[in-house]
Amino acid sequence: MKTLADELFREFREHSVSEFFRKNAAMLGYTGKVRSLTTVVHEAVTNSLDACEEAGILPDIKVEIRRVDEDPEHLRVAVEDNGPGIPEKFIPSVFGKMLAGTKLHRLLQQRGQQGIGISGAVMFAQITSGKPALVRTSTGDGRVVEVEVSINVDRNEGEVHGKRVEEGGWKGTRVELELKEVVYQRSRYSPFHYLEMTSVANPHARITLEEPDGTKTVFERVVKEVPLPPEPMPLYPKGLMADDLLVLCRSSKSRTLAGALTGELSRMTKKKVEEVERLSGVRLDKKPQELTWEEAERIVKAFRQMKFMAPSSSGLRPIGREHIEKSLRRMYEPEFVSAVTREPKFYRGGIPFVVEVGMAYGGKAGRKEEGEGMEGMELLRFANRAPLIFDQGGCVITSALRSIDWGRYGLNPEASPLTVFVNFCSAYVPYTSAGKQSIAEEPEVYEELRFAVMDVARELRFYLCRKTRQKEKEQRAGIFEKFLPIIAQKASSLAGEEPPDIRPVLKKVTGLEPDGGE
Amino acid sequence: MKTLADELFREFREHSVSEFFRKNAAMLGYTGKVRSLTTVVHEAVTNSLDACEEAGILPDIKVEIRRVDEDPEHLRVAVEDNGPGIPEKFIPSVFGKMLAGTKLHRLLQQRGQQGIGISGAVMFAQITSGKPALVRTSTGDGRVVEVEVSINVDRNEGEVHGKRVEEGGWKGTRVELELKEVVYQRSRYSPFHYLEMTSVANPHARITLEEPDGTKTVFERVVKEVPLPPEPMPLYPKGLMADDLLVLCRSSKSRTLAGALTGELSRMTKKKVEEVERLSGVRLDKKPQELTWEEAERIVKAFRQMKFMAPSSSGLRPIGREHIEKSLRRMYEPEFVSAVTREPKFYRGGIPFVVEVGMAYGGKAGRKEEGEGMEGMELLRFANRAPLIFDQGGCVITSALRSIDWGRYGLNPEASPLTVFVNFCSAYVPYTSAGKQSIAEEPEVYEELRFAVMDVARELRFYLCRKTRQKEKEQRAGIFEKFLPIIAQKASSLAGEEPPDIRPVLKKVTGLEPDGGE
Repeated sequence: MKTLADELFREFREHSVSEFFRKNAAMLGYTGKVRSLTTVVHEAVTNSLDACEEAGILPDIKVEIRRVDEDPEHLRVAVEDNGPGIPEKFIPSVFGKMLAGTKLHRLLQQRGQQGIGISGAVMFAQITSGKPALVRTSTGDGRVVEVEVSINVDRNEGEVHGKRVEEGGWKGTRVELELKEVVYQRSRYSPFHYLEMTSVANPHARITLEEPDGTKTVFERVVKEVPLPPEPMPLYPKGLMADDLLVLCRSSKSRTLAGALTGELSRMTKKKVEEVERLSGVRLDKKPQELTWEEAERIVKAFRQMKFMAPSSSGLRPIGREHIEKSLRRMYEPEFVSAVTREPKFYRGGIPFVVEVGMAYGGKAGRKEEGEGMEGMELLRFANRAPLIFDQGGCVITSALRSIDWGRYGLNPEASPLTVFVNFCSAYVPYTSAGKQSIAEEPEVYEELRFAVMDVARELRFYLCRKTRQKEKEQRAGIFEKFLPIIAQKASSLAGEEPPDIRPVLKKVTGLEPDGGE
Repeated sequence: MKTLADELFREFREHSVSEFFRKNAAMLGYTGKVRSLTTVVHEAVTNSLDACEEAGILPDIKVEIRRVDEDPEHLRVAVEDNGPGIPEKFIPSVFGKMLAGTKLHRLLQQRGQQGIGISGAVMFAQITSGKPALVRTSTGDGRVVEVEVSINVDRNEGEVHGKRVEEGGWKGTRVELELKEVVYQRSRYSPFHYLEMTSVANPHARITLEEPDGTKTVFERVVKEVPLPPEPMPLYPKGLMADDLLVLCRSSKSRTLAGALTGELSRMTKKKVEEVERLSGVRLDKKPQELTWEEAERIVKAFRQMKFMAPSSSGLRPIGREHIEKSLRRMYEPEFVSAVTREPKFYRGGIPFVVEVGMAYGGKAGRKEEGEGMEGMELLRFANRAPLIFDQGGCVITSALRSIDWGRYGLNPEASPLTVFVNFCSAYVPYTSAGKQSIAEEPEVYEELRFAVMDVARELRFYLCRKTRQKEKEQRAGIFEKFLPIIAQKASSLAGEEPPDIRPVLKKVTGLEPDGGE
């Protein structure tokens, strides 16, 4: 018997992830002509920085944006790095297959984590210009490979054509993408600003930008240490959910559950394992694959009652207080700068993270509304050193900052010349969208962001108080300096005596040397 | 020769889309204990409404949210509809496979369009409670099938267990999901509010909610017509991009390009085809599959120069002015209500859409800040009649409304007791995220939203002006009414005459009947 439902379900189909994101390009950040261009640059530069970091190389990245013909919305973007290169057989998957990569299954702090980004950029190029990506890469084995890569959207597969091989000692990767329906400009949402921000958060990188009008800008590195390569990180027991534990145990190579717990999680000593066994009542000598849901729930509950050392930050790569301050100083020439790199915390799923906050006050810091001369607080958001330029409204960083009572710190978000720099470091950033421009409202992240901001704001308040006191002192001193000599002179002339040396008195009264210094 | 790159790429893996969304549940709206619960309800109710609409059935949807044990964050959600049911063999794919469905490849106005939603809800249940979904369905063929469905995350496949079959005449679908780490409350972000909003935009649906404390609420239907079933819609030539045209032609069954254009696009008459041929210089008698990128670009360019009738709205199912006003009246008992359903427009890709805006002023309309007695504008966003409750900040509806100069309409967004209802209808809604809670900033959508809002705001302004004039009139009348009789009496008593009947005079002077009516 054919029912209406049978009829309706005749159209039931399965789709590839590429097809999904082709129809939903907005979810990857391809919305608007300015943003689309910046997204392409972002994806390529992100990959280059990750590759260099993983290989322990000081990154030297060139970005060229050139016009192709008389159409100003037709541009060719090339991004070249001095990274480790890509082995030939992986080229089609790296540039043409979504949800493929070296990152998704490991807890590793990197800018990319989805295996979507650069394939998305190749797809955007393909659907706007009809042109495949041009990839040139060498792993340093003497062979430089150049191929064109296009995406087979129906099958979510990369296809290569026109392979050329040269001999040469060069090492690195260059990708060229031809785009239509994009606009180059120098706004807050432009590749220029994006790269400037990237340079602030990656003081070890040299980034060169060539704009369509031929202008070349070098964002020079200010530090010469390569950050340590990222390391896979074990999960932290607290915050872990039953399902996370089951997934871990299912793929564990340990013989026993006890072994799996110590091997796969951080801060699990033998003593802790005994405590888990006692609190949960689960026997830990069985195979990890035999763990049931109920047992997993009991173990997770035990974790929550237990005390552990703070999460390990071994795999996290924060920028560090000193480097943030250096970057902010170079960028804003401020009168005050301070930063903090907080201790690691964890959020749901046992995922460790570190929050860093820097503030620059005065100088060129603060938001500048063009043409209006208005000032106020500027917020720079980063996740694993990658700038978050778009979707500011929906980001936990924004909501945490909004919740701060700035008046308590002597600041006014509408008027103070203040730049707040926030970097969220984690092996897994809970983005709200595949476009990776805003971070979800995880309660632990929200709280920690608030604490970090308050840490630095407190220091800024001290500075501002000191500055105010100093000013008052100087004003006070000014009055004495102005009138004491006159009084001394009048008095001495009345008394018919020589005016006395009033400098010691002045110093005593004002607390200042007569020249105004302290 | 083994290079560093070879070493780094040893970890290269491909991932399933389920795995991706398991790790990135926030992208599907699973963030926070309140929102996660509402997202589950949203996904199930959305599917039920779509199914009923497609089958031409007046929807009768029951939502039950019950506690499972003493843990208040452990809830069981059941959603039952009287829809067409699901054929048995599709159950695993509907509830357990992401990117599968009847909707993604057709241009059809429905609430769902991704083939992710309900599988995402099943996954959320699975990773928080460890329990599979319980699905009970019948297509009306006398067999009621009940199965448990779980998701194999690694393979993105649904797996069924514990099948039971009963005989019975019932038709419909019921899905039960057990969730942990969720919170039930009655805030703006709760299932209660979500269903109330759903009822406003779906006045033909009856929705019953049973809350965890046993309270039953029926959101009764106010109209009894079933909306017409959605129809696949052809794309509109303007706005089409070259790649869209190539995709269309590649799968076209027409013998010639000319046939493909008239068959797959709207508003393409034979005359228009000739015009395309002339303007583009592309011969249209070849096979559609032979279309090249350059030719596609020329054709698309020709489309942009040509004049077409407005896009067809045949497949669009707006709520309609009358029904919106009915809903708003029932909900807010306002002193003023008005709505508009605009003519269809199109956005990038040639996708037609319709914007509807309604406003309710006074009565219970407007935002109520709890406990503060503050009022102001309330915004209700909908996409294809599904409420958008979250991520208001990043949505084009919000930014379009923000750009309106409300003062021109005698309104103050901070104080006026105003509810603005916006429904965006399209066969493809450009969501910014798979969580489908905000619409991307497409310029055509933004402009059209502004026009629609201004349309209704203008009417509201007339009403408010009339109200003010009426008030002034009444005040003026009040003065005459008070003093004319006294003057008449004094004058007549001075003249020694009977006081005259001053009512006709009063009416003439004040423009009002003496009782104050007009």
